[in-house]
Amino acid sequence: MQNKVSLPVIRRLPRYYRYVEEMIARGIERVSSSELADLMGSTASQVRQDFNCFGGFGQQGVGYNTSVLYEKLKELIFQDATLPAILIGVGSLGHTIARYISQECFGVSLVAAFDIQEDLFGEKVENVDIYSMDFLESFCREYNPQIAVICVPKEAAQQMAERIIKLNLNGIWNFTHCDFSLYDDNLIVENVYLQDSMMSLQFRINNIDLGE
Amino acid sequence: MQNKVSLPVIRRLPRYYRYVEEMIARGIERVSSSELADLMGSTASQVRQDFNCFGGFGQQGVGYNTSVLYEKLKELIFQDATLPAILIGVGSLGHTIARYISQECFGVSLVAAFDIQEDLFGEKVENVDIYSMDFLESFCREYNPQIAVICVPKEAAQQMAERIIKLNLNGIWNFTHCDFSLYDDNLIVENVYLQDSMMSLQFRINNIDLGE
Repeated sequence: MQNKVSLPVIRRLPRYYRYVEEMIARGIERVSSSELADLMGSTASQVRQDFNCFGGFGQQGVGYNTSVLYEKLKELIFQDATLPAILIGVGSLGHTIARYISQECFGVSLVAAFDIQEDLFGEKVENVDIYSMDFLESFCREYNPQIAVICVPKEAAQQMAERIIKLNLNGIWNFTHCDFSLYDDNLIVENVYLQDSMMSLQFRINNIDLGE
Repeated sequence: MQNKVSLPVIRRLPRYYRYVEEMIARGIERVSSSELADLMGSTASQVRQDFNCFGGFGQQGVGYNTSVLYEKLKELIFQDATLPAILIGVGSLGHTIARYISQECFGVSLVAAFDIQEDLFGEKVENVDIYSMDFLESFCREYNPQIAVICVPKEAAQQMAERIIKLNLNGIWNFTHCDFSLYDDNLIVENVYLQDSMMSLQFRINNIDLGE
């Protein structure tokens, strides 16, 4: 196994995982690199190269057994771990993402939520307690959550960035426009930039003659 | 101006736009390609190349006037258009995204919402009416919405894909795992794959020794 796996390869893993999961659901037992490449919009050689980053998942020429491939990808992504996560910001987006994590995300578990709205303290979101932001640091020292899911308004995120990067978290799932990598470029951050995504869509529709 | 702009360039435009917006808010009047490059994690030459796709936004050697740059980017992305959008799927995610569009998205306006839940018909989400999915085609024929925002469960999306791609929309903002490009590779689709994003985060935390 190679030492380093590039971010583009990492970002393709969930897609392989999803496609293979769907194949199994449809009763498909074997898949070739080129069939996977068609789905990924890449090439068979790219697929083999990606899998070789992890020691390869099959034998040349016979394709991949979908169940084996699925188990290998699952092990690789989730490592049998359940990562404890905290939610920061329990507004409309925070509620929805908390529900999404409970219902759709394997291998991650929400353990607490934090907000500044007093009327939320003592309430619950998806069965976890909502605490005052005042307890953020002490909670993290005691319970060592590994992920913070950031759903606060943009201005609040910028103000809290210095605070959040000191929490000794392993990673951040960021729904704000705060660029946490500006504060700590070693922090593992996944950004869901909703506004950027919509703006890309708008550009492409509004400039259809310039389209790719 | 060149004829075609690549998707990576398009995806960088909203980030330039955001960074320049922040600079203006902080009172910064000029910015150089290399300052922008630092924020983007790219190079000054990349920044100039990106802007040259649109005829360039400044004069070599003196940096960019942030207000001018902001206006040019704004014009480019939004083209003074307000794109009418429909929401398909008014669950928890649908509600949150409807609110997000109303509050955070410039140049796009929600005009109707659709669901299969009878108790939602006649209700409103962010001031627009919720209709039965039965009216989807007739509504689109009459009002020509340009964007569909898809917030239905995965299984439903797959079932509806053939239906959605026939609506004569200009673009799709897709929050499901349905891969609309498999049905029509000319359709403009922006995918927000939440689960993939979380899985990438999990992989990077769970395999920190393999990290990029």
